[in-house]
Amino acid sequence: MGDFLSGKFITFEGGEGSGKSTQVRRLAETLRGKGIGVVETREPGGSPGAEMLRHVLLTGVAEALGPKAEALLFAAARDDHLRVTIRPALERGDWVICDRFADSTRVYQGIGGAVDVEFLGALQDLILQGLRPDLTLILDIPAELGLERAARRRGSQGRDAPDRFEKHPVAHHERLRQGFLDIAKAEPERCAVVDATADEDEVAAEIRQLVTERLAL
Amino acid sequence: MGDFLSGKFITFEGGEGSGKSTQVRRLAETLRGKGIGVVETREPGGSPGAEMLRHVLLTGVAEALGPKAEALLFAAARDDHLRVTIRPALERGDWVICDRFADSTRVYQGIGGAVDVEFLGALQDLILQGLRPDLTLILDIPAELGLERAARRRGSQGRDAPDRFEKHPVAHHERLRQGFLDIAKAEPERCAVVDATADEDEVAAEIRQLVTERLAL
Repeated sequence: MGDFLSGKFITFEGGEGSGKSTQVRRLAETLRGKGIGVVETREPGGSPGAEMLRHVLLTGVAEALGPKAEALLFAAARDDHLRVTIRPALERGDWVICDRFADSTRVYQGIGGAVDVEFLGALQDLILQGLRPDLTLILDIPAELGLERAARRRGSQGRDAPDRFEKHPVAHHERLRQGFLDIAKAEPERCAVVDATADEDEVAAEIRQLVTERLAL
Repeated sequence: MGDFLSGKFITFEGGEGSGKSTQVRRLAETLRGKGIGVVETREPGGSPGAEMLRHVLLTGVAEALGPKAEALLFAAARDDHLRVTIRPALERGDWVICDRFADSTRVYQGIGGAVDVEFLGALQDLILQGLRPDLTLILDIPAELGLERAARRRGSQGRDAPDRFEKHPVAHHERLRQGFLDIAKAEPERCAVVDATADEDEVAAEIRQLVTERLAL
């Protein structure tokens, strides 16, 4: 984005149990307190059509399709999300805060999955058409601790079974974590790594400071 | 393809009521009579995962997604079809005869739809990875006559409602027909136009002759 008049696009990335959805909500509250219009959203999903695909993707029905076809379904969901939710919000000057975006595709389907990273890159270029987040906050937490937190959250929500992305062994999640850190290292202007092991208020404070500095709030 | 040892890939294209599925079946019978292993298939669909997506695509549930996302779903179905059905068949030396393929995407989503033809081309390149039909038979019929035939077929099958691609006005179908003819003109080595107004046996005979000549049967 970068246009003075347009809204800002902030994405949250990171592993299971890193506290993304809590921090998305807290940042949205902070920004609304400053009079900014904020759209909170998430991927996969974020528009009615994409939420329909989210169900197919996360329950694993789409696994029968093979990894490339699955990546194309994720792309379809993202395209719809951009068309219906993200671009219109940015055009009217709202800020968009999104729980997971293109970096999750790269990490989960590419590094942690079976899809060629070049294929994914070409597909993303087709979908995004030059749009990229103004700021990506990578919530970093050791995989084992994150998985413990995710399991506790499931318990408190009465959900018993981990979703298909949580079921992998810890070493796999640690590789995903490294994938996010590598992206942050490669694109330091867009990305900031946040220590997500700190308590919720501290993490929220660090995020507020990063947003203020990076987006000249 | 073109490899001496591998199977041949033949696609049938054309508008509603042009008799594609009948002619696919007849050509398959002819080839089997010559001792050739034949896989008959169709798009969207042709593999269990892709048939699941076919239902979503043809009933119009996916229309909520917008045209680009819909094109990505078609691409997901095609990728699965290639992975599960088409490539394995060609690798073991079978011939594959497919009712609709990439030209239908170009015509229905591009020329007749709302998707940028360059976007579709880039997406197809990603999916096909150099694979293309050895021969594409374009069954040509005036749109009005084809729609009448499709309506009669629906009646005889006890189906009352036209599917979403049949519902457009005749002028729209005539534009699609021209789209197929333009592809044939642009790629004469791959494509052959067959007059589909002739009776079934005559069309079958012309197709047999084209396959014999073009694929050195």
